[in-house]
Amino acid sequence: MCAFVAVHAGAGTHSHKTEDVCLKAVCKSKGDIIEAVKELENDFRTNCGFGSNLTFGGHVECEAAFASSEGHVFGAVGVVSRLRNPIEVAAMVAKEQLCGDKKFVLPTVLVGKGAEDWAQKRGITLCDPKSLISKRSQQQWQEAREIVKDWEKETMDTVGAVSYENGGCNAACSSGGIILKAEGRLGHTVQIGGAIWADQRDSRSIAVALSGCGEYIAQTLLAKTLAETLFSWNCEDVILDKINHVFDAAFVHSPYLQTRNKKHVLAGGLVLFVDRESRCAELVSFHNTMELTFAFFGNGNKMKYRSRSFSSDFIAHSFSLRDYINFF
Amino acid sequence: MCAFVAVHAGAGTHSHKTEDVCLKAVCKSKGDIIEAVKELENDFRTNCGFGSNLTFGGHVECEAAFASSEGHVFGAVGVVSRLRNPIEVAAMVAKEQLCGDKKFVLPTVLVGKGAEDWAQKRGITLCDPKSLISKRSQQQWQEAREIVKDWEKETMDTVGAVSYENGGCNAACSSGGIILKAEGRLGHTVQIGGAIWADQRDSRSIAVALSGCGEYIAQTLLAKTLAETLFSWNCEDVILDKINHVFDAAFVHSPYLQTRNKKHVLAGGLVLFVDRESRCAELVSFHNTMELTFAFFGNGNKMKYRSRSFSSDFIAHSFSLRDYINFF
Repeated sequence: MCAFVAVHAGAGTHSHKTEDVCLKAVCKSKGDIIEAVKELENDFRTNCGFGSNLTFGGHVECEAAFASSEGHVFGAVGVVSRLRNPIEVAAMVAKEQLCGDKKFVLPTVLVGKGAEDWAQKRGITLCDPKSLISKRSQQQWQEAREIVKDWEKETMDTVGAVSYENGGCNAACSSGGIILKAEGRLGHTVQIGGAIWADQRDSRSIAVALSGCGEYIAQTLLAKTLAETLFSWNCEDVILDKINHVFDAAFVHSPYLQTRNKKHVLAGGLVLFVDRESRCAELVSFHNTMELTFAFFGNGNKMKYRSRSFSSDFIAHSFSLRDYINFF
Repeated sequence: MCAFVAVHAGAGTHSHKTEDVCLKAVCKSKGDIIEAVKELENDFRTNCGFGSNLTFGGHVECEAAFASSEGHVFGAVGVVSRLRNPIEVAAMVAKEQLCGDKKFVLPTVLVGKGAEDWAQKRGITLCDPKSLISKRSQQQWQEAREIVKDWEKETMDTVGAVSYENGGCNAACSSGGIILKAEGRLGHTVQIGGAIWADQRDSRSIAVALSGCGEYIAQTLLAKTLAETLFSWNCEDVILDKINHVFDAAFVHSPYLQTRNKKHVLAGGLVLFVDRESRCAELVSFHNTMELTFAFFGNGNKMKYRSRSFSSDFIAHSFSLRDYINFF
């Protein structure tokens, strides 16, 4: 069976044609979710890896996470400045839990120098932190520092991906965080159930990858909440309605965010839903930010998409994966 | 109304009289959960702050978190080596979300040097990392390094606390992590819904503070899962049975931990349950580790307790808080 991979370039506003960046990533990935995310990390137009948003002090501090329905593993790295491809190390952290020495409790989340040294011991070459700063991120940081007092805008768009192959599914996320963030700030990426979730129960596989305001996505455990709801979902209802309802109840009107500034309660992303028994397979995109761009690839077919909401209302699209996933 | 505070010294095995340490902490706290945890951090016998477990390289890397039902805020610090009282900073991170400038998204979790510098800017004096190493932790680390190859034991006991006052509740946790952990390892403390949860809905207030195998507590979001279940709990049933059932289904036999080493699926802690309408108030302790020691204080009354399980089976105790919380 061919693998299916979908990536998004974050819920936010994009001045560049990020849907093309997404399409290139899924086409070059050969069905490997980590390769797809690496491609996005290496592109200056995305807010992860090279070209990440800078902290208040002007540094790059990245985070990335990987989750798999195989063994229900999760691995993440945060506040790393010397990893060119944080997603690679996040996946290594997760996979070591499957294959490593079970006498010890192996780490799930590693941060800072500890994460970088751990990666180096496993053969990853560390990079100069400055080599992760793009001209564009440097310029945006300078502008932001100058107008910080009256500033309302915060770039939140990061990247995420979901994949499916032979019944199993994966989710991955890589982020440069919000611009002018405090040094040492950990976002939703490293939070289990925050940015990503991948799970398989009976004939259903569900993977979720989110972008948006990290603190609020983490607080509401949005990826896990969405997945949990879809596991008990009746396929006869419209999946968009279900997702809209959960987004509204568990995020926009969450009791946990009642005291927060509503302007920042922004998120978006991709949900992959596959039910082998009913041969139902859908990819849903949704967001309440201005934009979400994404692309997906499977069974030789590909698609890129730029979803726009001019009212900042919730907007969602559903794509049947009949031509992308072959169940036979 | 008088405040009620309960603390535990972790689910594990204690060679010292940690129940006395707990009792001293709650009595000296004057109803303030942060003061209670600071007292435990300052004591060499607990695995947090001074006397924390050392990493593989021989360093102290602490973490702490605070959650409040007021505004549903959560704040945490991780991988910090220069904070004498990490819980103080975790609470500052949480409380700034209530009182800080709402134009920006304020951080929820800060790690490493970023967390230390953030604290220093707010008047916290940084300490020498070496001043957090106790003679006991240094000795344990040396012994562990020598026998690491055949080693089965991992000290997991950290501290946690729950409190209640005027309908609101709080939970706090502070940890030195597992001994010989990888540098940069983040544990369950900084995971929203992992080690702690504090929530208030209608007439019910529930606070949970857990200790044990951090990676698995985080993976199963155990504190949140326990609290969620008790919000829909019918008071006529026995609370211990309910907690036992959730612990079994959502932790010991969690589908997310199926591929892990069962020997490490260990946890314990305190659950505070208050229903003002039915005037029901209980404190439940539970664990499947060898021991859990704790103490609580309210309305001039105090109690210390050392709970032991010789079979490593699940063990739980329930305490009526009739004499500790005055509803009138």
